[in-house]
Amino acid sequence: MSEKQKIFFAELQPYLNRLQQHLAEFGNEERIPLFYDPIHYILKLPGKRIRPLLVILSALTCGGKLESALYPAAAVELLHNFTLVHDDIMDNDDLRRGQPTVHKKWDIGTAILAGDGLMGLAFKKLLECPEGDVLTMVRRFTEVMLIICEGQGMDKMFEMEADVSEEKYLEMIRRKTAVLIELSCELGAITAGTDQANIRLFRRFGHALGMGFQIQDDFLDIMADEQALGKKVGSDWMMHKQTILTIKLRQRTQGNINDLSFEEFRELLKDQRIVKEVEELYQAYFRDAFDALNTLPQNSYNRSLKELTSLIQNRRW
Amino acid sequence: MSEKQKIFFAELQPYLNRLQQHLAEFGNEERIPLFYDPIHYILKLPGKRIRPLLVILSALTCGGKLESALYPAAAVELLHNFTLVHDDIMDNDDLRRGQPTVHKKWDIGTAILAGDGLMGLAFKKLLECPEGDVLTMVRRFTEVMLIICEGQGMDKMFEMEADVSEEKYLEMIRRKTAVLIELSCELGAITAGTDQANIRLFRRFGHALGMGFQIQDDFLDIMADEQALGKKVGSDWMMHKQTILTIKLRQRTQGNINDLSFEEFRELLKDQRIVKEVEELYQAYFRDAFDALNTLPQNSYNRSLKELTSLIQNRRW
Repeated sequence: MSEKQKIFFAELQPYLNRLQQHLAEFGNEERIPLFYDPIHYILKLPGKRIRPLLVILSALTCGGKLESALYPAAAVELLHNFTLVHDDIMDNDDLRRGQPTVHKKWDIGTAILAGDGLMGLAFKKLLECPEGDVLTMVRRFTEVMLIICEGQGMDKMFEMEADVSEEKYLEMIRRKTAVLIELSCELGAITAGTDQANIRLFRRFGHALGMGFQIQDDFLDIMADEQALGKKVGSDWMMHKQTILTIKLRQRTQGNINDLSFEEFRELLKDQRIVKEVEELYQAYFRDAFDALNTLPQNSYNRSLKELTSLIQNRRW
Repeated sequence: MSEKQKIFFAELQPYLNRLQQHLAEFGNEERIPLFYDPIHYILKLPGKRIRPLLVILSALTCGGKLESALYPAAAVELLHNFTLVHDDIMDNDDLRRGQPTVHKKWDIGTAILAGDGLMGLAFKKLLECPEGDVLTMVRRFTEVMLIICEGQGMDKMFEMEADVSEEKYLEMIRRKTAVLIELSCELGAITAGTDQANIRLFRRFGHALGMGFQIQDDFLDIMADEQALGKKVGSDWMMHKQTILTIKLRQRTQGNINDLSFEEFRELLKDQRIVKEVEELYQAYFRDAFDALNTLPQNSYNRSLKELTSLIQNRRW
């Protein structure tokens, strides 16, 4: 992380400490360690906690209380970790944030059960929220959980499809990534009891931030400087994963791009002006995210949301 | 099934047909077959649908409407199928009701995702219920979903523990089996908008029925006539699974019972009067189930619940 990022996250640390208290204890830990140990293990891995921060800052921007916002904040983090544990099994990944994944440290059965538990605990936390329209929150939470599962299904289907359209690809990342970021902002706004117009603006902000983030993620995986990214570039390419870049290139060249070397692939992306096009695409989403924030109440929390958006937009990781 | 059972279930067929409509379509099937095909596959396997029938008959006993009861009825069936799909992976079972399990017909990743989807769809159905205190229903549903996961965790832990106490074993089957049957009856009563006293009686009925059912299940797996059971007896014994029978025998004999042959084991159970004791235990639960029903409104639906309880109590499968 850059110095600027470190300062930003340090200022938000008190929120993250309170969040961690919500994620630290659930009740039956001592009696059923095989169920709760993997759950606490994944919740303790270092993470940026972007989603719960979005819940908290969205709520505070609308005049909501931190104490209430912590419940949906914990719920979206639990939902996110549910998807991580189950996706790691499906993708057969050994490492998560440099540590063994749950199914590697324990076994597949234990990891399936831990994911199920994280899902149940997510609903539990949300239902405990002392303020706001809890029933509306649970309805949206359920919808989004299903959309994420559908997105994972689409992603798995794309592995077997030769040509996925750009439109279908964008629909998939909306489901897999953007809806949860959208939900995080929306739940913050709902807890604060703000009006429908603001809730819609927060959804627009979250959607744009989520889409921008994922398209940029695809971009950085191929085009980033390896040292700045902090992991090997080209991992999507190695796995023959369809991304916005491969889809555009396949459309443009009509050829088999799997035979290219990674360097040839990068050169072709530049020649075909795809690098520029994709950069413009995600920058447009980030612009829309800022536009939405500019229409919302202007205060220090809104400024933090802008700073967070700007950190993501300018990230090299 | 006996003639009596066939007639009973034939009379309830109209309810089951309406239920199946709720389980037949969810919305995005055509676009994401990899996600929805396994879900429809498991929901079409023949099953007795005991849990949704309990929701419906409990609601009707309290003067509730069938149309409303179908939502929680579908929700508990979806929750039940979520546990089946994930448990089959954990237990590495190849067959479910004579058909390949989801992870055998597709693969583990697809089955994990199908289970997650069934869970999401369960919440969705429950939230669509047009009558009754939906928020209370969702709270109870979430609690029970977590208790079932904890029960599965306890069950997995017991595989590695040499001596499990009777008390802990009963706590495990309460979590793994009885709470969902209890919830089914409770949700039926809540949809009907009945009073707290009746809701408590329905919980008592469901708890007793669920405990009686599971203890009898352990009993039949060892003591049943193979032909009547319709599957091999002794499957729990073969797998060295702890059951109320092995736990009582280990306490009584203080010896290593794993070295016994199946026939020796059965003989010892009779000699030690454990057969009789366990029969008395589950019969006491069934009696309590009838007692609860006798205190509830007496009508044709209550009579159906008694008949269903009696069919379970006298089953040989």
